[in-house]
Amino acid sequence: MTLTQEKLAQAIDILQRSDVDTWMVFVRETSAGGDPVLPLILNGGLTWTSALIVTRDGGKFAVVGNYDADPLIASGDWDEVVPYVQGIGPELLRVLGAVPGPRIAINYSENDVMADGLSHGLYLMLRRLLQGTSHELVSAEAIVGELRGVKTESEVRLIREAIRETERIFREIPEVAQRGMSERALYDHIQGRMAERGLGYSWDKAGDPIVNFGPHSMIGHGIPRSDLYLEDGQILHIDLGVIREGYASDIQRCWFVGETVPEDVLRGLEAVNAAITAGAELLRPGVRGVDVDAAARATIQRHGYPEYLHALGHQVGRVAHDGGGLLGLAWDRYGDDPFKPVLEGQIYTLELGVVLEGRGYLGIEEMVRVTADGIEWLTDRQLTMPTI
Amino acid sequence: MTLTQEKLAQAIDILQRSDVDTWMVFVRETSAGGDPVLPLILNGGLTWTSALIVTRDGGKFAVVGNYDADPLIASGDWDEVVPYVQGIGPELLRVLGAVPGPRIAINYSENDVMADGLSHGLYLMLRRLLQGTSHELVSAEAIVGELRGVKTESEVRLIREAIRETERIFREIPEVAQRGMSERALYDHIQGRMAERGLGYSWDKAGDPIVNFGPHSMIGHGIPRSDLYLEDGQILHIDLGVIREGYASDIQRCWFVGETVPEDVLRGLEAVNAAITAGAELLRPGVRGVDVDAAARATIQRHGYPEYLHALGHQVGRVAHDGGGLLGLAWDRYGDDPFKPVLEGQIYTLELGVVLEGRGYLGIEEMVRVTADGIEWLTDRQLTMPTI
Repeated sequence: MTLTQEKLAQAIDILQRSDVDTWMVFVRETSAGGDPVLPLILNGGLTWTSALIVTRDGGKFAVVGNYDADPLIASGDWDEVVPYVQGIGPELLRVLGAVPGPRIAINYSENDVMADGLSHGLYLMLRRLLQGTSHELVSAEAIVGELRGVKTESEVRLIREAIRETERIFREIPEVAQRGMSERALYDHIQGRMAERGLGYSWDKAGDPIVNFGPHSMIGHGIPRSDLYLEDGQILHIDLGVIREGYASDIQRCWFVGETVPEDVLRGLEAVNAAITAGAELLRPGVRGVDVDAAARATIQRHGYPEYLHALGHQVGRVAHDGGGLLGLAWDRYGDDPFKPVLEGQIYTLELGVVLEGRGYLGIEEMVRVTADGIEWLTDRQLTMPTI
Repeated sequence: MTLTQEKLAQAIDILQRSDVDTWMVFVRETSAGGDPVLPLILNGGLTWTSALIVTRDGGKFAVVGNYDADPLIASGDWDEVVPYVQGIGPELLRVLGAVPGPRIAINYSENDVMADGLSHGLYLMLRRLLQGTSHELVSAEAIVGELRGVKTESEVRLIREAIRETERIFREIPEVAQRGMSERALYDHIQGRMAERGLGYSWDKAGDPIVNFGPHSMIGHGIPRSDLYLEDGQILHIDLGVIREGYASDIQRCWFVGETVPEDVLRGLEAVNAAITAGAELLRPGVRGVDVDAAARATIQRHGYPEYLHALGHQVGRVAHDGGGLLGLAWDRYGDDPFKPVLEGQIYTLELGVVLEGRGYLGIEEMVRVTADGIEWLTDRQLTMPTI
């Protein structure tokens, strides 16, 4: 089975356990962005307005512009590929006339950006096309959340390979990072290595990797500076995500610049790892992300550091921030995501950091897979502080 | 002035001639796709829900998540960068409280995919956040259409450079394309050359370039086949678009496989070029795309060939299909785009082809810039048929 076939079979299985009859991905001109769910069920793009339709009773239909049809037919993934020339309306209504019930789930969500691939203009078009029919449009947030989140075997294998590529680049850092080098130079080096290995970016290229040298660096999603240089006594922090064959990694690592790691750095490292461990110990199917985050948050504060201003962990899949359930706190911007129960087969980051005065940002980010009764570490944890 | 500064100044100028007070780009987690307009006014991405706001009286405001703020501040493009931690609502309302009127244009459109970057979920969120205020949300289709379409000097220069890169690859084809080579092998070669030159893809990588050998190839957006080989008597057709520094090309070229170009190929070439010329002669500011298309369509039919099942031309910008006014016919799937008046400074393709029995697809695509009273050819027209 190919990856798209695995995911289409999984979508049908999810639909059979849901209260909707049909899931429809409605897209156009996908080179302009498209729906982030599309690559799970289709290799390549679509130009004209297209509907990919999966039904509770196992039907798989594609209604696409005439010039887009051939690759879909060639894939063998679809029961019927219906090409049109002038407008999608008539053929779409014909196909939807045969689905097993009125409720159609489409990809919109206030909460989850990865389940929100339908544009508002396409939503208005769909409403107009379905006017006068008995079809009812509902959010596919839960369907997409499970489909993206619960990884098939092939997906786990691909993510492991992306992690291996990332760890390979990290292993080279002590040789490459020299005192007097700028953040920007190290960032350029890492992007050069990614290009040589044919790797893509898990988030926007301008900020991947994030490279932080010492206390004057931009923490967060900043751009590496060409006027900040590596110096003794600093922490070197890198947040790197690579994409290999469509699947992503997202890992943070730190190094201390100097011969001996000082006490304050060791204390910070211990606190960060204690918080990650506290989260990991709670993480299992059925738990809510908000509770996992709270355990880590309490731990870092108990160690005397301020709480981190982000979520403890997010899911990783085709991109670093892969949407769905989140190990986060009850902030508005996270919507309902921290309250969704964790599912077996999801892959999360566990990440936080502390700012050490005069030294910079000590941040660590690991990746774990949720198993039947706990987690499996996908990364080799950073439990010690290497020196440069 | 940087490119983003040029485009922000242009946006303010467009707003001053429009009936709206404010234009707002509302996005989140742009690595998942984002709004295709965003790269015009921002380098890099945004993680949390963000509002980029431009007002009729020249104001430029960004309300963004705390970790996203630094690069925007560093760009110097914004009068005010307002970071938030928990949710965008309060700061967004505060900034919108100071805009010069109630009408806010946002990026949704049934017609124009490139002006339809707002997701339906974000639209619902925005409606919820603005509830109880006097703000009125309208489509920014016209604003975005002009902003994308009318190229600044820097944009024209970048597109010329993308065209030069494409023509360089085309010049190498007679050396590279050997009888017995497969479509797939030539496609791999061209993608390899693009990687060496650091070029991106103007549309989905799986179908860029399109490579067609002879009569059994998939015409349209098909994927090159590894079991179709170059043979005497065939037409070799390539549709290639490259992106260089964020701007795209989109050009089609043909070669005849054999020593002498036969009569039927010369007749096809002449007909295709006559149709392109007929369109070009009509293209100028103020004309409707549908009329330009009709002139070319009538010409190819007058030469005894069937009409082409697509538009004569589309705009090119940051991607090949750059949205807005279209040189197309009145098909449903093109919406209103063929009826929009052509503007000075827009860049269009002129493209069509004919199928020659036993030989394959003879398609040509040129690129032109609309001037004050006509057009300027950006490509060197293919008026003869080279042999391989």
